[in-house]
Amino acid sequence: MEKRENTKEYEFSNKRMTDIKISVGDALFSNKNFNIIAGPCSIESEDHIFELAHDIKKAGAGILRGGAFKLRTSPYDFQGLGKVALNYLVSAGKKENLPTVSEIIDVRHIDYYADLDMIQVGARNMKNYTLLRELGRGDIPVLLKRGMDSTYEELLFAAEYIMSEGNSNVILCERGIRTFENYTRNTLDISAVPALKNFTNLPIIVDPSHSTGRSELVEPVSLGAAAAGANGLIIEVHKNPSKALSDKEQAVTPSELSNIVEKSKKIIEVLG
Amino acid sequence: MEKRENTKEYEFSNKRMTDIKISVGDALFSNKNFNIIAGPCSIESEDHIFELAHDIKKAGAGILRGGAFKLRTSPYDFQGLGKVALNYLVSAGKKENLPTVSEIIDVRHIDYYADLDMIQVGARNMKNYTLLRELGRGDIPVLLKRGMDSTYEELLFAAEYIMSEGNSNVILCERGIRTFENYTRNTLDISAVPALKNFTNLPIIVDPSHSTGRSELVEPVSLGAAAAGANGLIIEVHKNPSKALSDKEQAVTPSELSNIVEKSKKIIEVLG
Amino acid sequence: MEKRENTKEYEFSNKRMTDIKISVGDALFSNKNFNIIAGPCSIESEDHIFELAHDIKKAGAGILRGGAFKLRTSPYDFQGLGKVALNYLVSAGKKENLPTVSEIIDVRHIDYYADLDMIQVGARNMKNYTLLRELGRGDIPVLLKRGMDSTYEELLFAAEYIMSEGNSNVILCERGIRTFENYTRNTLDISAVPALKNFTNLPIIVDPSHSTGRSELVEPVSLGAAAAGANGLIIEVHKNPSKALSDKEQAVTPSELSNIVEKSKKIIEVLG
Amino acid sequence: MEKRENTKEYEFSNKRMTDIKISVGDALFSNKNFNIIAGPCSIESEDHIFELAHDIKKAGAGILRGGAFKLRTSPYDFQGLGKVALNYLVSAGKKENLPTVSEIIDVRHIDYYADLDMIQVGARNMKNYTLLRELGRGDIPVLLKRGMDSTYEELLFAAEYIMSEGNSNVILCERGIRTFENYTRNTLDISAVPALKNFTNLPIIVDPSHSTGRSELVEPVSLGAAAAGANGLIIEVHKNPSKALSDKEQAVTPSELSNIVEKSKKIIEVLG
Repeated sequence: MEKRENTKEYEFSNKRMTDIKISVGDALFSNKNFNIIAGPCSIESEDHIFELAHDIKKAGAGILRGGAFKLRTSPYDFQGLGKVALNYLVSAGKKENLPTVSEIIDVRHIDYYADLDMIQVGARNMKNYTLLRELGRGDIPVLLKRGMDSTYEELLFAAEYIMSEGNSNVILCERGIRTFENYTRNTLDISAVPALKNFTNLPIIVDPSHSTGRSELVEPVSLGAAAAGANGLIIEVHKNPSKALSDKEQAVTPSELSNIVEKSKKIIEVLG
Repeated sequence: MEKRENTKEYEFSNKRMTDIKISVGDALFSNKNFNIIAGPCSIESEDHIFELAHDIKKAGAGILRGGAFKLRTSPYDFQGLGKVALNYLVSAGKKENLPTVSEIIDVRHIDYYADLDMIQVGARNMKNYTLLRELGRGDIPVLLKRGMDSTYEELLFAAEYIMSEGNSNVILCERGIRTFENYTRNTLDISAVPALKNFTNLPIIVDPSHSTGRSELVEPVSLGAAAAGANGLIIEVHKNPSKALSDKEQAVTPSELSNIVEKSKKIIEVLG
Repeated sequence: MEKRENTKEYEFSNKRMTDIKISVGDALFSNKNFNIIAGPCSIESEDHIFELAHDIKKAGAGILRGGAFKLRTSPYDFQGLGKVALNYLVSAGKKENLPTVSEIIDVRHIDYYADLDMIQVGARNMKNYTLLRELGRGDIPVLLKRGMDSTYEELLFAAEYIMSEGNSNVILCERGIRTFENYTRNTLDISAVPALKNFTNLPIIVDPSHSTGRSELVEPVSLGAAAAGANGLIIEVHKNPSKALSDKEQAVTPSELSNIVEKSKKIIEVLG
Repeated sequence: MEKRENTKEYEFSNKRMTDIKISVGDALFSNKNFNIIAGPCSIESEDHIFELAHDIKKAGAGILRGGAFKLRTSPYDFQGLGKVALNYLVSAGKKENLPTVSEIIDVRHIDYYADLDMIQVGARNMKNYTLLRELGRGDIPVLLKRGMDSTYEELLFAAEYIMSEGNSNVILCERGIRTFENYTRNTLDISAVPALKNFTNLPIIVDPSHSTGRSELVEPVSLGAAAAGANGLIIEVHKNPSKALSDKEQAVTPSELSNIVEKSKKIIEVLG
């Protein structure tokens, strides 16, 4: 039975680049390093992000994330504090000397992100090629999450939409795909990490929070990703997860984060 | 085993609207009518769309579709003729007295679509809530395709993003979901048609071209959709499919379209 | 990106057989006919199947199904009445002059089915090649359901396991595949009907009950299948669905069955 | 939107057993230990398994696997050497002092496995409840692989089919599920390891060979599984993978196995 032909010969520009180093503030991403990004799903107030940034720094994570504009399934759910939250995030990052990253949801908002160290494109927007092209015309690093329905090839081509415009500072992120298993929020495809390395030298990180959707699974899955060769993690953290305004089931506490940082570093070390 | 809670009690605004009628030019969509939209994947030239519009009218379809801005997996594939193709489409539609629809891929392009009768949001943009909200502030009908990874609930909430801004002229479209079966391009979820009717009175149409990705499957799947209660079809047509600039495997010829129109009307008639 | 090679050149023996006619009692299955099989998920008592057989005959279905040995997810759920229920089924079929079919779950039970007109292999056993081979050594027609995780190719090869042993009386059944959508029990893959016809001349029927798992979806999906070219339907029926011992959400009443029979016949007729 | 109810309150018997220790020959499985099973997909000759057993022992794996009866998609592919291969396996295991395991495909073959230390139920037979019950009546440990379309709940219930008959020596195995991604053979669901531990104290191992279907992914995925808390691995090994009679793309060499053993032990050690 002949399969529908949906691939073709091509050479990804990112494959030709053999020694990729991406500076995100003071943090350096490459296909050999390991970095941990952490922070709240949504920034809930100025105090909230300042306090949490302090805890996250203490726990040993190297980059601060925080949601300002949120993509929620329902238009009636909390949509984030918006632009002001980006200011809070930048200030909190400066205070704690942590580089910052936040998700963009509107191509017309790019200017809002000028003071951040990285811009995240969420899974829902991985095929928003308009947004990708526009980000490709800037030089801020882009954290590109795999869409829930996207093949490796489609993720690599999405990166190509950014890179073909000139911006090669792209970090890929496996965050789980949609499958029939619904005990977890999505199914983390751990094989994506080594499989993508067959095709690209871009750094590849893993999101254990959105993939599992369950806080008790975040540590084991994080350690699994580290051992499988991921170049980093992006983890949702909240001081009091049950009171979080969004994604409360999947946030870990700062002390749980600290354990993950410590253990994943041990794994990286022992594997050389 | 307690499932992850990912639903909640809500009442969709579209469910409260019990007698929905949406005018797309002269065509009337409702949850009782049946309309056929047809046209090329990409508009390849002015002549191309004029000739095809004539054939499509003759074949009995009621609305003309044509791609101007294309979302392609690779940035190196043909991306459509752009804005000028929208002008060709509107002119061809006027000449043949056919209402027109084309896909939008950039929230900053809305003005380009002012002379069309409907704006299509493709599967890749179903969760581009920024775009949906902006379309909700206008009054041009929106053809909203289900994302390849989207549940019924997420599709209904996407419609809600449009409707909550004021525009209730939304037509839903089942176009296939991503599954393990890859002989077909996607898996058409025929049950979506009656299942969505449990929750909404919005019209629901089916796309047999993108779901199957194979021209020989377009007719049987179209007839299946008609019999299952779909309120219409959107079909890709090309005079010479093997020469099409995009999606050549799935286009049917005008004469094949004519058969589908005829047979689906018979089904609608016999089922009352 | 080169895909993992998982197909090969082959010619299915069933494709070489161009004029397949399978007698199931008085009913004739082919890739041109249309037959409706109906009955309860489980046979609950002798009276239960006798009464229902009468109603099913009256509703116009041509073959009687009924479960004797049940495969249930939990070992603690009702597992069917077993061998005695097969006797009830055969007697009820004789009384109403309806051919009979029931599912086999154990290769050591084949003798129990000698008086039935067809043996069903359920989705869970589609890859139980031991069972398939053994059924291939007999001559009772086999109703082979597609596994929930099975590609078209795997279904065709499963048929080949039966046919390569000598029994060519195989009827294929699309009954829904596992996807992320969980409003329905499974996702009916309507395209399987015409797609499989590209490769085989075996009759292909559709199971709207197990695929949707919801009684209100059974009629529209049945009609869709008829219009898409299916050679029959297999439908779960119960006089009082809410009291059924298994699969209560998906059973239709005899009067609903009667509507489906009538409307699907109209569709078959109008499509010629 | 109310989801279809497909779960219920229950207490798995395996959850009540809090200190499970399963002896497989000299090897001890528990939810705290870590064991590596290795061997060829198919036993190709007596010499083949004797040589490989020696290499596997040397590489540090603790249990020997080898296929005698094979379940192949096509009836025309190599189906294994059958019963004689079980004898070869047992002898090779004795010579190298390695416990042995092989897959069963026919409920009538149980006696053939009397001299093995464990019986494997493959993914295709996870829902062959007839077979599971029969294995439950013996006391040989059962290695139960998750079906490609099976939820955690269904896997746990399959174990329950064995345990409810009296045999509590069950080891679960995550071996990848069917998803839309087809660069890999299946998608390894790494989260299954910690998620299942929420419900059971049975040991859980991972199969990196069948899940990825690509030899170069076996090491990283194996290490990921070890770090995520798996209680073992089952790995396909061949001296000359390109000449293997089955599954050649996924076999690793003895020297690659040796690396995996060494590195995974380091991970287990460092995580305590």
